Amino acid sequence: MSKTNKYAIGIDLGGTNIKIGIVSDKGKLIHSIITKTEAESGPKKVISNIINGIKEVLNKNKFKIKGIGIGCPGVVDTKKGIVESAPNLPGWKNIKLASIIKKELGYDVYVENDANAAAIGELIFGAGKKLNSFVMVTLGTGVGGGIVFKKKIYHGDFGAAGEIGHISIDVDGPQCNCGSTGCIEAYLGNQYLKHTVKAELPHHPESKIWSLIENDLSRVSPRIIQKALELGDEYSLAIVVRMGKQLGTALTTISNIMDISTFIIGGGVAGFGQPLLEATRETIYARVLLSMKDRIKVMPAKLKNEAGIKGASSLVFYKN
Amino acid sequence: MSKTNKYAIGIDLGGTNIKIGIVSDKGKLIHSIITKTEAESGPKKVISNIINGIKEVLNKNKFKIKGIGIGCPGVVDTKKGIVESAPNLPGWKNIKLASIIKKELGYDVYVENDANAAAIGELIFGAGKKLNSFVMVTLGTGVGGGIVFKKKIYHGDFGAAGEIGHISIDVDGPQCNCGSTGCIEAYLGNQYLKHTVKAELPHHPESKIWSLIENDLSRVSPRIIQKALELGDEYSLAIVVRMGKQLGTALTTISNIMDISTFIIGGGVAGFGQPLLEATRETIYARVLLSMKDRIKVMPAKLKNEAGIKGASSLVFYKN
Repeated sequence: MSKTNKYAIGIDLGGTNIKIGIVSDKGKLIHSIITKTEAESGPKKVISNIINGIKEVLNKNKFKIKGIGIGCPGVVDTKKGIVESAPNLPGWKNIKLASIIKKELGYDVYVENDANAAAIGELIFGAGKKLNSFVMVTLGTGVGGGIVFKKKIYHGDFGAAGEIGHISIDVDGPQCNCGSTGCIEAYLGNQYLKHTVKAELPHHPESKIWSLIENDLSRVSPRIIQKALELGDEYSLAIVVRMGKQLGTALTTISNIMDISTFIIGGGVAGFGQPLLEATRETIYARVLLSMKDRIKVMPAKLKNEAGIKGASSLVFYKN
Repeated sequence: MSKTNKYAIGIDLGGTNIKIGIVSDKGKLIHSIITKTEAESGPKKVISNIINGIKEVLNKNKFKIKGIGIGCPGVVDTKKGIVESAPNLPGWKNIKLASIIKKELGYDVYVENDANAAAIGELIFGAGKKLNSFVMVTLGTGVGGGIVFKKKIYHGDFGAAGEIGHISIDVDGPQCNCGSTGCIEAYLGNQYLKHTVKAELPHHPESKIWSLIENDLSRVSPRIIQKALELGDEYSLAIVVRMGKQLGTALTTISNIMDISTFIIGGGVAGFGQPLLEATRETIYARVLLSMKDRIKVMPAKLKNEAGIKGASSLVFYKN
């Protein structure tokens, strides 16, 4: 590979913002910008925002670019670079995103589901570099996932695989946005978690969360729980251990079905750190079938800030 | 393929019995025998019983045999034909089953996990013939599974994939033999099912099960429930619908993770027929992510009696 060819553009296409950056083949973010998605204005406007953003980044940087990678919240035909559907982007149905951008800018363009892009980011730049197979778990507003099997994303029959947030751990559990019940997203997703903690806090008057939120329940957030945890709050530790039990139960199912035994945990809620990772690992170890027990590993993601841009840029190095 | 090469030996190696038969490439069972496994006497004795059984079948039949397929209850290295572990066969640790039998009899020998062999049986001879991907579910003493992805068994990293009986649908559910809780095997496996029905029957004095068991609770069995169901017993229907809900919840998880949307249901309990299949399908349809709903199919297995022998024999036609 020539020295002038070591950079890629990574684009994290979200429902609210588009993040665009230049990343080296070592995973170093050189420069990035944020621009509004304007999703409500439809695909044409969004794509024009993406193209303008790329031009802006290119104008300010003289690196030779190998290609463009885009992580997109939806079902993607990665071979054709088509976004088949994207629930949070109105009007996105079979949008030929790769070919439109390639036509405009001339670079090779690779499109992936954003959770899969995060997994490829860890595979190429992060905690998954030396692994054959692992499941990337992204804990944030929702619970996302990407499954790497033998160094490749497992896409399933039609590209919709890896929806690990929608593993149900209780057939009669709480209602999930997806229509099912007891999905781990309905326990661990930010809104659900806040909801639970707000309801429980009055039963824990001793919790250090109270002073952090200045007695205002509307200020409960994962960040606040993390702070309380760092202050040694017992209730916060109990929350995190319960989350680990819930997550671990779901991940056990993945191991038993797919015989994949390494899990990389990323996303905002992963800020709960060791207590969460440890409770998750202990739960999987206790529950998984005997032949897999000793192979179970749970580790933190390496790409933290700008994991979205870096994951998207890694598509360029993964494909080639 | 020459006409004289259209037959295979299929061997269903169980903890109690070994079933051995000759099967045509159309899946027709020509002749079969049953012999005792004598598992407690260790691998040498079991393998000698297998070899003697094969010789007996070969002596009585003058078909030209293309190879030998063996379905085995355990984790198998299919490439090397090694049985790595088999919980119900004492002493089976890294047994080179294929090479031992090939050395003795001269035929090519293919070994697979028995649930995977059942899946390959449906792929080659049965309901999966025209399918690219499906999950084979075997409902019996346990709940077994084999995952066919793009016409091949999905083995996972170390050959232990497809343990769908150990998908937990309730983190706080009933204890399963495997050590976890809420596994669907702990609801649908024969012993668990009998246990539940025995406990519930006193609350259903009107059930037609009572007369079928002549008021003797020890006679409750899946076969009895099936008979009562055929007689229009409402409680039996409720049992079966609940089973479909439990099974469907677990299969939804497989679809959401693996993007595989067709399920083939076999094994003894599959005798519950349409009510079970329908409740399973309705549950998956209601719970699975939107992008997969319209692809969900649940169908009965085609190989009924001797599915074990036929599935094992299909390994010969699948590999070649």
